[in-house]
Amino acid sequence: MEISARNALKGSVKAMVPGVVNTEVTVEVAPGVEITAVITKASAEKLGLMEGKAVYAVIKSSDVMIATD
Amino acid sequence: MEISARNALKGSVKAMVPGVVNTEVTVEVAPGVEITAVITKASAEKLGLMEGKAVYAVIKSSDVMIATD
Amino acid sequence: MEISARNALKGSVKAMVPGVVNTEVTVEVAPGVEITAVITKASAEKLGLMEGKAVYAVIKSSDVMIATD
Amino acid sequence: MEISARNALKGSVKAMVPGVVNTEVTVEVAPGVEITAVITKASAEKLGLMEGKAVYAVIKSSDVMIATD
Amino acid sequence: MEISARNALKGSVKAMVPGVVNTEVTVEVAPGVEITAVITKASAEKLGLMEGKAVYAVIKSSDVMIATD
Amino acid sequence: MEISARNALKGSVKAMVPGVVNTEVTVEVAPGVEITAVITKASAEKLGLMEGKAVYAVIKSSDVMIATD
Repeated sequence: MEISARNALKGSVKAMVPGVVNTEVTVEVAPGVEITAVITKASAEKLGLMEGKAVYAVIKSSDVMIATD
Repeated sequence: MEISARNALKGSVKAMVPGVVNTEVTVEVAPGVEITAVITKASAEKLGLMEGKAVYAVIKSSDVMIATD
Repeated sequence: MEISARNALKGSVKAMVPGVVNTEVTVEVAPGVEITAVITKASAEKLGLMEGKAVYAVIKSSDVMIATD
Repeated sequence: MEISARNALKGSVKAMVPGVVNTEVTVEVAPGVEITAVITKASAEKLGLMEGKAVYAVIKSSDVMIATD
Repeated sequence: MEISARNALKGSVKAMVPGVVNTEVTVEVAPGVEITAVITKASAEKLGLMEGKAVYAVIKSSDVMIATD
Repeated sequence: MEISARNALKGSVKAMVPGVVNTEVTVEVAPGVEITAVITKASAEKLGLMEGKAVYAVIKSSDVMIATD
C-alpha cells in the first residue's frame, strides 16, 4: 500500500505504554531522534508491535506544525 | 512557550512551496530524514520562514500513525 | 505497507479539484457513499490519482467524530 | 447544526469499547463498510450512544488520506 | 445534528481569505478572542459564510494542545 | 518557542480527568467559554498542569471546523 501521507519515517520501536483503548508507541527514526504516536491498542496488536520492531512513523503534512525559538 | 505536543523535532528548512492560503514547508530533522508540513501562508510569514532557518517540526502524538512493511 | 489507521475504505476516485498546494479528491466507497479528502498536490501526483482509479480512503480513528440527528 | 466537515456518513453503531478517557465506536456506513472512531467517553455518554443507534461518522476532509495498492 | 466534538464555540465570522481549494475563516468567540479555521472553499460556500454571520468554531478535543509560558 | 498553529488562546485550567495514557484538560479562555483538550498523561505531567494554572489552548487552523445553526 502506498499512501498520500507525505511523511513516512523509517525507524524502530523504542518503547510502548499500553492503556485501555490506546497505546503510546515511541519510534526512533534517527540516532537520538524519536517520534511518539498514540494509536488504538487494537492497531498495535494487529501490527504485532513490540520493542525493536522495524516500523514507519506516518504523518499527514497537514498535521505538522513549525515552531521557532 | 512549552507545548503538550510530544514531538518537537529540531531541524532546518529545506524547501518551501507557497500557495494562496497554505505553504508547504520541508524540514530536515537528521541527515536524509525530512518532514513536510502544510501550514497557513500567514503563519509562514509570521515566523519568518526561509530555506536554511533553524526550526522545529511539532506533531501531536495522536496525529502519528505506525506502519509496517 | 500495513498501517495503524483503523479505517481503510476501498473505493474509486469520483472527482478531483486541484489547487496550488492541495488537491481535493472524492472517493466513492459504496454506491452513493462518498468520502472527500484534501491531500497535497505532490501526493496526488506521486500516487498517479485520476478519476476511476481504485484507491483506499484512510482515516485515523481519532479523527472521526460521531453525530446524531 | 450544519458543519463544514465535508464527510458525514450515515450509519449505525456496531460496537463500542469504553476506556477511562476515551471510547472506541464502530459505525457501519454501508453493508460491510465500517468506520471506527475514538471519541471521549463524555461525548459518547452525552450523545447516548449504544449499539444499533443511528449516527453519522463525521470526518474533516483534511484528515482523510488516499492510499493505493 | 449533535456532534461528539467536545468544543463548539459560538461566535461570528470576522474575516475570510479564499484560496483555490481552501478558505481561511476567522471567528470571534469572545471580545478579543479569535479562532482561525481553514476549511474547504466548497464548505464555506455550502454554509453561506460571510463576515458577521453567527457560527460555531467546532474542535475535536484530541486536536487541542496545551502550552505554558 | 513560537509556533505556526494560528490559534493560541490564553486561559486557565478548569478541570482535569486523568486516564491511563491520556488526560482530559478543560481550559477557560474567556468567562463561560471553555475548550477541552485530550493530551497524553506524560505531557500533562511534564507541563505541571493543575487546576488554576495559566495555560494556552493551541489549535492548528486545519483542525477547526465551522458550523451553523
